[in-house]
Amino acid sequence: MEILVQKYGGSSLATAERIRAVAERVVAGRDAGRPIVVVVSAMGDTTDDLIGLARQLAEDPDDRELDLLLSTGETISCTLMAMTLRHLGHEAISLTGAQAGIKTDSSHSRARIVAVDPSRVQRELAAGRIVVVAGFQGITEEFDITTLGRGGSDTTAVAMAAILRASCCEIYTDVDGIYTADPRIEPRARKLTQISYEEMLELAQQGARVLHPRAVELGSVYGVPIVVRSSFNQNPGTLIHGEIAMEVRNKVRGIAHDTDVAKITVVGVPDRPGIAAALFQPLADANISVDVIVQNASVRGTTDLSFTVARGDLNRTLRLVQPLAGEIQATDIASSTDLAKVSIVGTGMQHAPGYAARMFRALAERNVNIDMITTSEIRITCLIDAGQVAEAVQALHEAFQLDRADL
Amino acid sequence: MEILVQKYGGSSLATAERIRAVAERVVAGRDAGRPIVVVVSAMGDTTDDLIGLARQLAEDPDDRELDLLLSTGETISCTLMAMTLRHLGHEAISLTGAQAGIKTDSSHSRARIVAVDPSRVQRELAAGRIVVVAGFQGITEEFDITTLGRGGSDTTAVAMAAILRASCCEIYTDVDGIYTADPRIEPRARKLTQISYEEMLELAQQGARVLHPRAVELGSVYGVPIVVRSSFNQNPGTLIHGEIAMEVRNKVRGIAHDTDVAKITVVGVPDRPGIAAALFQPLADANISVDVIVQNASVRGTTDLSFTVARGDLNRTLRLVQPLAGEIQATDIASSTDLAKVSIVGTGMQHAPGYAARMFRALAERNVNIDMITTSEIRITCLIDAGQVAEAVQALHEAFQLDRADL
Repeated sequence: MEILVQKYGGSSLATAERIRAVAERVVAGRDAGRPIVVVVSAMGDTTDDLIGLARQLAEDPDDRELDLLLSTGETISCTLMAMTLRHLGHEAISLTGAQAGIKTDSSHSRARIVAVDPSRVQRELAAGRIVVVAGFQGITEEFDITTLGRGGSDTTAVAMAAILRASCCEIYTDVDGIYTADPRIEPRARKLTQISYEEMLELAQQGARVLHPRAVELGSVYGVPIVVRSSFNQNPGTLIHGEIAMEVRNKVRGIAHDTDVAKITVVGVPDRPGIAAALFQPLADANISVDVIVQNASVRGTTDLSFTVARGDLNRTLRLVQPLAGEIQATDIASSTDLAKVSIVGTGMQHAPGYAARMFRALAERNVNIDMITTSEIRITCLIDAGQVAEAVQALHEAFQLDRADL
Repeated sequence: MEILVQKYGGSSLATAERIRAVAERVVAGRDAGRPIVVVVSAMGDTTDDLIGLARQLAEDPDDRELDLLLSTGETISCTLMAMTLRHLGHEAISLTGAQAGIKTDSSHSRARIVAVDPSRVQRELAAGRIVVVAGFQGITEEFDITTLGRGGSDTTAVAMAAILRASCCEIYTDVDGIYTADPRIEPRARKLTQISYEEMLELAQQGARVLHPRAVELGSVYGVPIVVRSSFNQNPGTLIHGEIAMEVRNKVRGIAHDTDVAKITVVGVPDRPGIAAALFQPLADANISVDVIVQNASVRGTTDLSFTVARGDLNRTLRLVQPLAGEIQATDIASSTDLAKVSIVGTGMQHAPGYAARMFRALAERNVNIDMITTSEIRITCLIDAGQVAEAVQALHEAFQLDRADL
């Protein structure tokens, strides 16, 4: 019988009551002895609490130490889940990331999985046990504990599903699935029954926080069907998978927005080769993710170069960029944190013209000014004033008729 | 330079403030770059809190799961200690029991150390780092996490000191050292400057809770000098070591007492071979520690057999013993929890008569009735009424002149 992998997030495990409810759901999904691997996040705010404790003792805790500290959160929840399943009369065993064979590189706090050795998990499944795996963590060749960074438990779940050739990876969270827009901002937002990996990847990268882009990417590479659904009800959720008949449905699938944006503009840069490299290499070395980059064609021989980073990275970025200003002969470096991104995403867009124009018109009609624009094959993103995000999302949701049933 | 091993208990690490104070103490002890290994317990009540959480979800949590759960307590405190040491400007690294090479058997919740592989610790020490080891935990051949049971962190510390040939193992706690009696009961109790392994072992086994008998035993086997002292002041503490000139000092070194005692009496047992084995084998199989055993010589062909266990084991013991009553033809099984043990301990006693008589007389003078008596070579233990413990300890402390300076 095919293996099922389920992942439960921290809010689904925040209290003993909720852990019990999740355990009952796991047991129910085990009908006819189907092998199940359950991947768990840390309970509720555990991770934040541990970080708070660390910062009381060290301003800038070492990444290796922080990884070992934070890994305890998932270890606690996986043992509690295994105990609860046993209490309900089912054979179950907890495994840390290391025990589950999650081998990573040694980039602490943002480790990448280099291999998964599934032998222990397979042995436990063969013995008829429900296997509960601590998400978010792995182990290096030197037996040091690492964490996988943001979205780490999702990544653990999809990696386990891939290596075990599971029929499906279910991601349980506190929302019903993937919506055409954030329902807290656009009440008419509609849950999608299915979406392609590519579309989900763009939505996730542009601010939809339900599922992390890394997990989507891994699912796409290994062809793991992913279902995002709520652990608080029985609604069917959203299926993320491969080919979907494109021709017959709405070309725009969803609106993403992201207010975690800081913009930096390097003013009056000479228009000559090597400037961008000189600017962005130090940021790459410091592991700062640069998102939107816009450079306007120059007429006077100088140009303004703007780019965005996460707000938490702004100070670090400025510290790296300011010393370069002289070297690249920039006249000024400006920054702003009152911007946000709104994006429309849809695989169909690439072969159908007019989406960009329709997007810009919808924003203009609501007097939303566009600061920067970037596009991918299946996405158009505008930077706008942070205060106008809700209005922009609603305008686009309406303009692209996303409240209508799946076409 | 010789290696120093220090162990800090949970009360010394209960808050961020205390962790900082301990870190400063570690740094101070590092004068001239002396290599230091720091073994830590879980912060304050962490272990009890985790057990409480487990019991909310499972009445009788599985030992393997509980071990992995509880191990997170020490992992948290060792990472916090390493971060704090780094924050103070010192190279430091945290190691879990597994990373520190503590290999155990697979008796979960009470694992025994089978070997210590010191290579990682030695490598980190050679790199000039302070090594912080999570106490109480180890790993089996199958990579399962175990805990060492009560006194586990003391055992970790002494085992590390033994394998590293450390010059000393310092056990930091919330009292100033080993006293001639519990100072909360006998205000005139005096701190011992030194004591032999054998005496410490008897004191610890008979209720002195400062240091666990397992750690003392390990120290004795490997000849590791152990110093018990307070982490809250600079007082010198008590040195536990090998040969001490016996002839010139007081033969009785200390009074131990223990109220964690339950007594079971099997009444009217036929006086024939095999009865004791039939009774105690099932208890041994259930890992119940039987302490004092007393059987009175019989005149009528039957006898009463009494023994004591820890109070927490009483119900389990009765469940095992009651079904045997018929088999061994006992007429009744009685139990009591209102008893306590008081013991006098001293290496010199074995070669000097009269100690027992002096003990019984001291108790009789205060009208303390003796329920059972047992002796070892260097100890005499009486079971008395639990309500008379304080009086008995004071009487014995006075009778053996323990308030006088070390003789």
